[in-house]
Amino acid sequence: MSEAAQTLEGWYALHDFRSIDWTAWRLAGEAERGKALDELQSFLSQWSAIEDSKQGSTAVYSIVGQKADFVLMHLRETLEELNAIETAFNKTSFASFTKPAHSYVSIVELSNYMAQPGSDPMQNPDIIARLKPTLPKTNHICFYPMNKRRSGNDNWYMLSMDERRTMMRSHGMIGRQYAGKVKQIITGSVGFDDWEWGVTLFADDALQFKKLVYEMRFDEVSARFGEFGDFYVGNLLGSNKFASLLSIQD
Amino acid sequence: MSEAAQTLEGWYALHDFRSIDWTAWRLAGEAERGKALDELQSFLSQWSAIEDSKQGSTAVYSIVGQKADFVLMHLRETLEELNAIETAFNKTSFASFTKPAHSYVSIVELSNYMAQPGSDPMQNPDIIARLKPTLPKTNHICFYPMNKRRSGNDNWYMLSMDERRTMMRSHGMIGRQYAGKVKQIITGSVGFDDWEWGVTLFADDALQFKKLVYEMRFDEVSARFGEFGDFYVGNLLGSNKFASLLSIQD
Amino acid sequence: MSEAAQTLEGWYALHDFRSIDWTAWRLAGEAERGKALDELQSFLSQWSAIEDSKQGSTAVYSIVGQKADFVLMHLRETLEELNAIETAFNKTSFASFTKPAHSYVSIVELSNYMAQPGSDPMQNPDIIARLKPTLPKTNHICFYPMNKRRSGNDNWYMLSMDERRTMMRSHGMIGRQYAGKVKQIITGSVGFDDWEWGVTLFADDALQFKKLVYEMRFDEVSARFGEFGDFYVGNLLGSNKFASLLSIQD
Amino acid sequence: MSEAAQTLEGWYALHDFRSIDWTAWRLAGEAERGKALDELQSFLSQWSAIEDSKQGSTAVYSIVGQKADFVLMHLRETLEELNAIETAFNKTSFASFTKPAHSYVSIVELSNYMAQPGSDPMQNPDIIARLKPTLPKTNHICFYPMNKRRSGNDNWYMLSMDERRTMMRSHGMIGRQYAGKVKQIITGSVGFDDWEWGVTLFADDALQFKKLVYEMRFDEVSARFGEFGDFYVGNLLGSNKFASLLSIQD
Amino acid sequence: MSEAAQTLEGWYALHDFRSIDWTAWRLAGEAERGKALDELQSFLSQWSAIEDSKQGSTAVYSIVGQKADFVLMHLRETLEELNAIETAFNKTSFASFTKPAHSYVSIVELSNYMAQPGSDPMQNPDIIARLKPTLPKTNHICFYPMNKRRSGNDNWYMLSMDERRTMMRSHGMIGRQYAGKVKQIITGSVGFDDWEWGVTLFADDALQFKKLVYEMRFDEVSARFGEFGDFYVGNLLGSNKFASLLSIQD
Repeated sequence: MSEAAQTLEGWYALHDFRSIDWTAWRLAGEAERGKALDELQSFLSQWSAIEDSKQGSTAVYSIVGQKADFVLMHLRETLEELNAIETAFNKTSFASFTKPAHSYVSIVELSNYMAQPGSDPMQNPDIIARLKPTLPKTNHICFYPMNKRRSGNDNWYMLSMDERRTMMRSHGMIGRQYAGKVKQIITGSVGFDDWEWGVTLFADDALQFKKLVYEMRFDEVSARFGEFGDFYVGNLLGSNKFASLLSIQD
Repeated sequence: MSEAAQTLEGWYALHDFRSIDWTAWRLAGEAERGKALDELQSFLSQWSAIEDSKQGSTAVYSIVGQKADFVLMHLRETLEELNAIETAFNKTSFASFTKPAHSYVSIVELSNYMAQPGSDPMQNPDIIARLKPTLPKTNHICFYPMNKRRSGNDNWYMLSMDERRTMMRSHGMIGRQYAGKVKQIITGSVGFDDWEWGVTLFADDALQFKKLVYEMRFDEVSARFGEFGDFYVGNLLGSNKFASLLSIQD
Repeated sequence: MSEAAQTLEGWYALHDFRSIDWTAWRLAGEAERGKALDELQSFLSQWSAIEDSKQGSTAVYSIVGQKADFVLMHLRETLEELNAIETAFNKTSFASFTKPAHSYVSIVELSNYMAQPGSDPMQNPDIIARLKPTLPKTNHICFYPMNKRRSGNDNWYMLSMDERRTMMRSHGMIGRQYAGKVKQIITGSVGFDDWEWGVTLFADDALQFKKLVYEMRFDEVSARFGEFGDFYVGNLLGSNKFASLLSIQD
Repeated sequence: MSEAAQTLEGWYALHDFRSIDWTAWRLAGEAERGKALDELQSFLSQWSAIEDSKQGSTAVYSIVGQKADFVLMHLRETLEELNAIETAFNKTSFASFTKPAHSYVSIVELSNYMAQPGSDPMQNPDIIARLKPTLPKTNHICFYPMNKRRSGNDNWYMLSMDERRTMMRSHGMIGRQYAGKVKQIITGSVGFDDWEWGVTLFADDALQFKKLVYEMRFDEVSARFGEFGDFYVGNLLGSNKFASLLSIQD
Repeated sequence: MSEAAQTLEGWYALHDFRSIDWTAWRLAGEAERGKALDELQSFLSQWSAIEDSKQGSTAVYSIVGQKADFVLMHLRETLEELNAIETAFNKTSFASFTKPAHSYVSIVELSNYMAQPGSDPMQNPDIIARLKPTLPKTNHICFYPMNKRRSGNDNWYMLSMDERRTMMRSHGMIGRQYAGKVKQIITGSVGFDDWEWGVTLFADDALQFKKLVYEMRFDEVSARFGEFGDFYVGNLLGSNKFASLLSIQD
């Protein structure tokens, strides 16, 4: 048996992708739309207040293409809180104008391949801040899930800890070259959802997503061992932009 | 031909995942919702009474994310009883506010890799209790199906009984380290559903699901031979919590 | 080129899996439900009469879990007859309360790996009876489709006739151990549907499905060459049980 | 780089599989059904006239099982004509009682593995007739798409022209044994649809589809290199049979 | 780690495939259809004006078969502009008569395998024109996504830069033989959508799509390393043709 890397976990994450039922929305009267928008704005305010009080964080982005119209990415201390957010949202009339498009359940994770022996990482404020982060409000978001491959000679989980550590170090180097351009939040989802990890990237220039993911693909960790799910890319939706996205000219 | 491991079987299991049609539920009048809630509570009481009389067991959990809103996990002596539960539920008005999301048919199973020669396991009360268990009421549930791989050099079913026994022993060791943290119910589904086994985990701390499944993935049984389906994770739904999940403020 | 095994074919088979639209059924008035039930009972009688006259056979089972609510398995002399059954059923008001869930088109088949040279199998009444069988009315049914793998070194169709015959003989031995417990109908679907074979098992004790399929999986034919599709398992639906399945208490 | 086989192309093909919305059809009044049937019969006549004038060909078959209720297979000179047929059909009230079930876009193709050097095939009337054929009106149709595998050591496209020619010759031999029993139309779909080829078989005895496809599967071209999609099988629908398929007894 | 090829990027691309709800369209009154057509024509004019001012480009094609009825392929400077186009379209009454069928998000890309050292490609007007192209208005379009394989010995991303450059050069040779027949636009989608690249081909003779893609499949880059998604093929839809596609004779 190969030794498992130690991991540190922080807040649970729910990525909630939704599509808008545009026909129903357009045909609803202005009053009904107004009520629904009020509900939405009220949620956005609540989530913002929770973020201000460091009890969690929420990012809101539109999604480009037909996969979804927007994503609500929530970080909270417990699965119960994430479930409560979903349920409260589902009960609104605004939610009736949306359809579930995709979701992902995971938990913010730092892997310990680079850990310093002898120190307690949970006493490190920088590490705490990375485990319970305030989500960036960059112009763009990118989300995709991934696995480490277990196939014939390309079986990540049969490698020794040393082999994995060496490869992860080289992998991390690439990420570091994008410091200041791309902010990366890794969430673990083993036992929670269908892939082993979720990767959420934030950048002001969306092209950097492509540059980073493409460059990493030539790195052995991704080239031999990376399996990738569907990619979602989107644009920041502040509350004004969300209202504008939903405005209908009668 | 490789020798098949002997297995012991207990109660049949039905995992019944359902989504709520929130729009229809919200728009239904209070009277209609009240009637539907009464039906639901009546079922919950019946299932609880059956559990009390040791004729079966039922666990009720909400599900986090869009895959489903809740799961009813039923254990019963026969497939006919499970079918009768489904049908009775489907005929209620409450069921009309739900949509099938996923289901899984299996049977509680103990594999005999560790069996003591010369003893009759069915005379062992501890084994009977594990084959016909009262499902835990921990805070969290995790469900996923799995296969043993039959691919090229990684073909579980071409291994000798000894090779499989050695690997399963090491695998079981990991599970034992989580005793008191994670309770695991293995159900066999060869001939009943699309994967070979269902795994249902119960824990008060959901993070233990991730720790356990991740650690096991480095074990050769999982690393080389494990194939995993979709994962569902959720929170305990007592009857009060279920009512609260469904409450609508008009 | 490897030599193809000779096969004998009998009746064509249609497995017609359907789900019930429970909400529509519940909301329909008693008169409408009564009319629909009369149509259903009339079909069940017709199919039964055809079975009595040895012009075909029909098995009716409920299905456990959400994949379907029931299956109609029809055997008939021609594809035209199967098509006519489908169409007649689809035109009823009862059918409007159901939704197609899955179907499978195949033909009863005996493979000739064990054939005695020099004898004409079609003169053998036992073989005719197996090619044009009256379907069992056991308590339980199990259906799944399968392929023989053609992958790298595990390519069934590149093996010699002798290699295949030896393996099939060992495979058949396992089946024979279940004589009296499990009745197996093999239908070929090459050129008719998406897998190469359909397997329909009948047993009074559903656990025997699991025992048989699991034991076979360790046999080289299945371990190296078997690819399996979705499994359906169900309970016998006599006409009384079908009426009871559909009864609604207003 | 391996040399590509030369191909000859004739008419474009559209396989248009559709399901009937039986509930809507049954509930429509006799007048509405009558109008829809007139539209259908008018199309069938038009397509028949085009076939008579050698400007194209259309085959109409019912499909057995739930995948579709019928298929319209059209051959025409251009993609624009196929598109126009689709659009005209979609605008009818008859089409409103159908739902798209599957479609396939391809072009009649002869591969040139057997070509005689020095002759211009397009001057050969027999070849022209095969490239722009009048579709058979046999009792049965079978359709499936296929690829040539590109996987590890089984990579068709890395073989030399000679290797491929030798294997295709042996493959063709099998087909020739079915002359008079099965008529085969190969259509190429590289660049047009999701598989590389479509295979449409016509026979008076549907069992010959199984015999032919099964025997071919033991041939190295199929055994090592064939990848197959979904199979559709059906019965001839002359205009009378189509009317009868759709007749409702009020 | 293998060296990543440098890439140049131009305009972002959105392929927006849509199906028409023909029943709703037919049943809508002439006034409602007229209003919807006006909206559509207004968009077509706006997109055309943007193309004239070199701020982007839009191609409009019908799609043959049931996958979609038409595609809008938009090129714009930013993801925000593409998102705005989608949203504006979704808010129209015309959009209510359509259903999303498929979409793809990518960015026009030139790979630098053939780059001349020492020159700045972004100073080259020819390269700028290829990165921000006016889309051709040929008779036909073909779209498909693709990956470079990472499987066992066929792992593109583990090859050296030299190996990849040599193969890409040979690959490019084939494309060059189709100069004047097929115009190819490569868009990169790593980090944006589910495949690594989108390929959009334009030709007056649709048969050239098949010839080109088939010939390339024998080239080692495609034969060993190419993985292909679904193919869409269609016919040019000028604004008159679009009106004609949608005309209903009451």
